[in-house]
Amino acid sequence: MPFSMPDMGCRARAASRRMAAAGAGAKAAALHAVAHRLDGDRGALKAANAEDVERATATGLDAPLVDRLVLDDRGIDRMCEGVRQVAALPEPIGAIAELDYRPSGIQVGRMRVPLGVIGIIYESRPNVTADAASLCLKSGNACILRGGSEAIRSNRAIAGSIRAALEASAMPTDAVQLVPTTDRAAVGDLLGLDGYVDVIVPRGGKSLIERVTRESRIPVIKHLDGVCHVYIDADADFDMAVDIACNAKVSKYAVCNAIETLLVAADAAAPTLPRLKERFDAAGVELRGCERTRAIIDALPATEADWGEEYLAPVLAVRVVDGLDAAIEHINRYGSGHTDAIVTKDYARSRRFLAEVDSASVMVNASTQFADGFEYGLGAEIGISTDKLHARGPVGLEGLTTRKFVVFGNGELRQR
Amino acid sequence: MPFSMPDMGCRARAASRRMAAAGAGAKAAALHAVAHRLDGDRGALKAANAEDVERATATGLDAPLVDRLVLDDRGIDRMCEGVRQVAALPEPIGAIAELDYRPSGIQVGRMRVPLGVIGIIYESRPNVTADAASLCLKSGNACILRGGSEAIRSNRAIAGSIRAALEASAMPTDAVQLVPTTDRAAVGDLLGLDGYVDVIVPRGGKSLIERVTRESRIPVIKHLDGVCHVYIDADADFDMAVDIACNAKVSKYAVCNAIETLLVAADAAAPTLPRLKERFDAAGVELRGCERTRAIIDALPATEADWGEEYLAPVLAVRVVDGLDAAIEHINRYGSGHTDAIVTKDYARSRRFLAEVDSASVMVNASTQFADGFEYGLGAEIGISTDKLHARGPVGLEGLTTRKFVVFGNGELRQR
Repeated sequence: MPFSMPDMGCRARAASRRMAAAGAGAKAAALHAVAHRLDGDRGALKAANAEDVERATATGLDAPLVDRLVLDDRGIDRMCEGVRQVAALPEPIGAIAELDYRPSGIQVGRMRVPLGVIGIIYESRPNVTADAASLCLKSGNACILRGGSEAIRSNRAIAGSIRAALEASAMPTDAVQLVPTTDRAAVGDLLGLDGYVDVIVPRGGKSLIERVTRESRIPVIKHLDGVCHVYIDADADFDMAVDIACNAKVSKYAVCNAIETLLVAADAAAPTLPRLKERFDAAGVELRGCERTRAIIDALPATEADWGEEYLAPVLAVRVVDGLDAAIEHINRYGSGHTDAIVTKDYARSRRFLAEVDSASVMVNASTQFADGFEYGLGAEIGISTDKLHARGPVGLEGLTTRKFVVFGNGELRQR
Repeated sequence: MPFSMPDMGCRARAASRRMAAAGAGAKAAALHAVAHRLDGDRGALKAANAEDVERATATGLDAPLVDRLVLDDRGIDRMCEGVRQVAALPEPIGAIAELDYRPSGIQVGRMRVPLGVIGIIYESRPNVTADAASLCLKSGNACILRGGSEAIRSNRAIAGSIRAALEASAMPTDAVQLVPTTDRAAVGDLLGLDGYVDVIVPRGGKSLIERVTRESRIPVIKHLDGVCHVYIDADADFDMAVDIACNAKVSKYAVCNAIETLLVAADAAAPTLPRLKERFDAAGVELRGCERTRAIIDALPATEADWGEEYLAPVLAVRVVDGLDAAIEHINRYGSGHTDAIVTKDYARSRRFLAEVDSASVMVNASTQFADGFEYGLGAEIGISTDKLHARGPVGLEGLTTRKFVVFGNGELRQR
């Protein structure tokens, strides 16, 4: 049978109905069966992956991208362990909250339910296939997965193992479907399935996210930029401020929760900038400073473009600002609404920063690099959303669910 | 100064920053000032409205639409009372929930915050101007209002009064802006302001909603169709079933939570259909039945198209189904995911209906016409969403807010 995207959508919708009705125990058991099957199929998975790697190398794919593609025994172990961890998470579906009686006599509450069908579009790493599928299954959804073309054989093998485990567990195999082609048009077809797919989660580079956002007729949960800030207040503990600013940058460079700009209150500049300069020099971080920064320490001159830049590299923009108001204004203007922190001992300013910085995560006296689903206790992470609607910040299983109203009555009629 | 939509967006964004920082008391006081001002300006409001009504009558607008346009003393009283009721609602902003310590030492919680800038596009009724503005102000948002062209003079007068009251309350006047033109292109311009506007709420007929959904580059909270159902189970209390089915239809016809199709289990058909027929005949409701229905009562033949039809009129489709599975399948296939109810005495089937019907509101033994924000205790209603993301079902102030993560630390650093 030739592949048809609407047909895939239709089967996903049907499978999602069965998944929504599946009990907590059945879902957990199925996920354990998936982990067991992936483990048992490791020979086939490695063989399929070897073909992908060979072809990628032959076509001259960059070495770091080939590295990301490789699925070895350790990677398979980790993939299976990840599925088991998802299986062990608390059941996210069915809880009813705020169940209160109303004057009419009806009792109204809100039940957490699956979204339905999740479309996931991702690049390179084949382990995402198992990762994404297990999160969708745990949350009672069906998913349509569209991986990168370099990983198509690995992804097919992984999806095949998952579907076999679902079948053996009497769960709907079409709850996990992989788009079988590497045809670029298939992404567009998936983004147009608004009758069948409830949300699209793109995971990958900025150009992928932008394309998906532009073309999708389906709501998108996305992560665009991570232009994060630490602001060192005049009343900061300067030792703490230096530690946090350094950790927020150098703990890891290529992560979205690393800071790209450091803001320093004018009164905090002389006590902190020379020490920061020393620490960043030692770590090999290039500093780009405003005029007031460069009056205190050596740094390349920062241009207007630096304030909005996501370097994802050992480069940091530094700006001296008059105080809290200027810091909040800078962050709300140039930031990406991802994660921003203040270092201060001042109570009122800590509260104003939390309330007025319009970002998904706002922190007092902590490193921005804590902004992820595991550190926040979500148990799992689909991604970090820089949108404001539905899911904001690190997204766990809850982001793949919604709430519906449930009403318990005893024959009540509406009086008009 | 000529009108510019991006300029309007920019000013709304700036005003939204001030609104987000405004305290509960200041917002409530400003809303009371708005109500007082609207009350005091009633002469000017009625004069502006009279011009709209005169022009609408002269251009041959349908009488019911002219009626909806009229703003008389009673309408102004109600409008002011509505604003005061919004002022009296619990403060929706700033609450922090789930504030827990993590193993790293940081404390993570979720703070409820305004969305930012809300774009509201609506038709005819000028009171929506005050209604929408007050909900946006209470929730700490700025709004850009685009009303119907027939009501432009009324809307300008109302928005003028609101802005004057904001100014007198030392609140940002640009928190409430009305698009001053009736130019159709202005809607498109507003829908393209994705840098400035966080969500669009269209309120009006289906063609407006569809246009907004199609053209918007901004997320939309929308209400499309209300194809609602009552399913009478074989084990229903038949007296209750007849009462609920009738109330869910005849209490009001032109509302989205009225049922359009009645589903009856085969074993419940003979005991209920003749009684229902009598009641619906008395109310003047035309019945369109499936073959099995028409074997028991007189009804016009229903066609496939009837199952998906939103009549909003005294017309009801009736279908006899084998039982619960068929009812759930029918609702999930033909319904609009709005509101559906089962009438049953059976415990297990009540639970399956709640879990498996994929609608914003699911009810047991209650009339679907309870599905609105006031009956649910939300205190106010922006609309009823048939989407699944962000807001589902009746939308109160919460739908105009989002949650961000707040992190309280004491110098914690991320260990990698």
